[in-house]
Amino acid sequence: MPRFPHFAARTSRLTGSVYEIYRGRMAAQGDRLVALHIGDSYAPPPYPLPLDAAFTRANPSFNRYCDTFGVPALREALVAKLREDNALDVTRDNVLVTNGATNALSATMQTLVDPGDEVIILAPYWPFFRGMVRAAGGEIREVPVYTTNADAPAMRARLDAALTPRTVAVYLNTPNNPSGRVLSRAHVETVAAFARDNNLWLLSDEAYDGMAFDGREPLSPASLPGMLERSVSVFTFSKVYLFAGLRLGYAVASPDVIQAVNRAMVHQLYSPSSMAQQMMVEPVRTRRTWRSTFVDEYQRTRDAVAKVQRFDAPLPEGAYFFFFPVDAYLRGRSVSDVVNACLDAGVSVAPGADFGADYATWLRICFAGESPERVLTGVERLNGVLAG
Amino acid sequence: MPRFPHFAARTSRLTGSVYEIYRGRMAAQGDRLVALHIGDSYAPPPYPLPLDAAFTRANPSFNRYCDTFGVPALREALVAKLREDNALDVTRDNVLVTNGATNALSATMQTLVDPGDEVIILAPYWPFFRGMVRAAGGEIREVPVYTTNADAPAMRARLDAALTPRTVAVYLNTPNNPSGRVLSRAHVETVAAFARDNNLWLLSDEAYDGMAFDGREPLSPASLPGMLERSVSVFTFSKVYLFAGLRLGYAVASPDVIQAVNRAMVHQLYSPSSMAQQMMVEPVRTRRTWRSTFVDEYQRTRDAVAKVQRFDAPLPEGAYFFFFPVDAYLRGRSVSDVVNACLDAGVSVAPGADFGADYATWLRICFAGESPERVLTGVERLNGVLAG
Repeated sequence: MPRFPHFAARTSRLTGSVYEIYRGRMAAQGDRLVALHIGDSYAPPPYPLPLDAAFTRANPSFNRYCDTFGVPALREALVAKLREDNALDVTRDNVLVTNGATNALSATMQTLVDPGDEVIILAPYWPFFRGMVRAAGGEIREVPVYTTNADAPAMRARLDAALTPRTVAVYLNTPNNPSGRVLSRAHVETVAAFARDNNLWLLSDEAYDGMAFDGREPLSPASLPGMLERSVSVFTFSKVYLFAGLRLGYAVASPDVIQAVNRAMVHQLYSPSSMAQQMMVEPVRTRRTWRSTFVDEYQRTRDAVAKVQRFDAPLPEGAYFFFFPVDAYLRGRSVSDVVNACLDAGVSVAPGADFGADYATWLRICFAGESPERVLTGVERLNGVLAG
Repeated sequence: MPRFPHFAARTSRLTGSVYEIYRGRMAAQGDRLVALHIGDSYAPPPYPLPLDAAFTRANPSFNRYCDTFGVPALREALVAKLREDNALDVTRDNVLVTNGATNALSATMQTLVDPGDEVIILAPYWPFFRGMVRAAGGEIREVPVYTTNADAPAMRARLDAALTPRTVAVYLNTPNNPSGRVLSRAHVETVAAFARDNNLWLLSDEAYDGMAFDGREPLSPASLPGMLERSVSVFTFSKVYLFAGLRLGYAVASPDVIQAVNRAMVHQLYSPSSMAQQMMVEPVRTRRTWRSTFVDEYQRTRDAVAKVQRFDAPLPEGAYFFFFPVDAYLRGRSVSDVVNACLDAGVSVAPGADFGADYATWLRICFAGESPERVLTGVERLNGVLAG
């Protein structure tokens, strides 16, 4: 049972790079070294590419394999960002660049979960995470949190009730998909204390980092005393960077964990894209110049939806979702009937069952994937279907 | 034991997209549909990117999530390529775009291998594949082939000897890394017959597709009668496309297998990059205009190395490696001593042990990762170390 600080049994079957022991001697040679050890191409691609010449000149290795831990300039930029924005006391050795937050979470599950182990998930939750636990042979235990008004002690009592001798980790996600909830400091501290008291790993999915409304400042659990070493915090370029199509993210953890998660990752996909990493160095460095513009726009869209909606739904505090029960609007219809009626009316919505066992009669809508105007059109169509 | 046509037990724990059942109704709405079901961003990234305006105009979805099976235009271009170049009788449903060949192989191992199952690997082989089998809980059985002069019947006898009741698959890789060998038609047909006779899955790693010398035309095993349905053939943009830094590849198999491998892949990383896929549509379509130039250059570099080398090594028939035993040049030194002496002389080489149990005293060099001039400098340095 791989409780902190231990890893899953399968990790002992994966070896790192065979070149690790030669790294110092290689570095000592500098540019003089003729590298014949790795299978790669010295020349740039011999066909046209839609890349600015200034970029390819500044990043002549854009087409080549990179350090599987991440391109150095990006890791450095992320360290500065994590220290400034998230109060995380990290260096480059705490950061692993991954193929999106999905890959960071997946490689982490391969690293921390043995068959039969259990992971406590604060619910509702992003559905793919459940599959990642299962792919590692684990089981999930759901604890509804984000949709309840339970205060921190009441939440702690629920977490304690879900604990078993097989529990190895607890997963939280704030700002939360699908509920749009941002956990309070007291709640985050309580989840951290629960992990510490029971020697669990803490998985903090911060995909919606930087996306909170009304001036909220979400707390990164790993910034709490003693929590960095037992946490894996996961971030992405898919949300506040508006670039899901890049498939880039990163994990933050102790160097030992980063090394182990890297071994799992290289056996899934070797590394994320060199070119993608090089493209994101400047956007990370300049994030303060462009980010708030978009968060403000999302907040305005949220408020516009709130004015138009004719169904009860809590106001999102972060992320970009409304999540709400539709029991009162079913009138004998199944949720699937309602989803189909929505589609026939020209609006797609996400059925809630996928986000946790307690949410079979809930729906989720995203207010960032279409222009604000079209979002409002969609909400009006949804109003019509729910009004029946 | 997931022998053809069965999958690994863990695949039954992974579900596909919850939206699958709504897909027809969604499509029927066309552009009228306001998509509120998925968490994505309608706007382009609000910071400068090094992308040509013509590309982002032509691919306005470059920053968004894509179909996890692949961008339609790329799948179509790949279908045409596979039919023309590899004689594979495929449609779009046979193709899954992945995060490099690494990811295609990894997701395939998660799909086909249960703990305790065995995979027969023609040796020598690319080291990461061993780790992927182990990550799925499987064991490997190595059968030295590419470095031997065994004819097809002798190779078949060795494969038969490696078969156990736990064998589920056989893995071959031609053109081969590290040996540079291209298997003859008789050898490929014999491996295919071995798979068919024993109801095994066939994994064909075609990372060096399109990279054979002296007019050789490597045979795709899945083009043999009845082999498409029991094969997973894996390709990449890292080698002949000279773009390892893109992390893009694809798997070719029956639609059932493609669906199952997709489920494993989405739980590893959701999808490969939308932008990367869109960038590669034209290079696939225009491959005949640029590809041979580079293969010819590689062949010239191979010939130049062969003239300069002062150690015995078979001439590569494909890929871009020389692979050879150094027993005669050790003179009391360990292989690690020799690798270190090479580094101190300014050339890095790959120790053979990683490529299979029989290759502890072999070395591999790549002749494509540095300019031809620097490759020759490296080979001269290697000459010096081996001459001792």
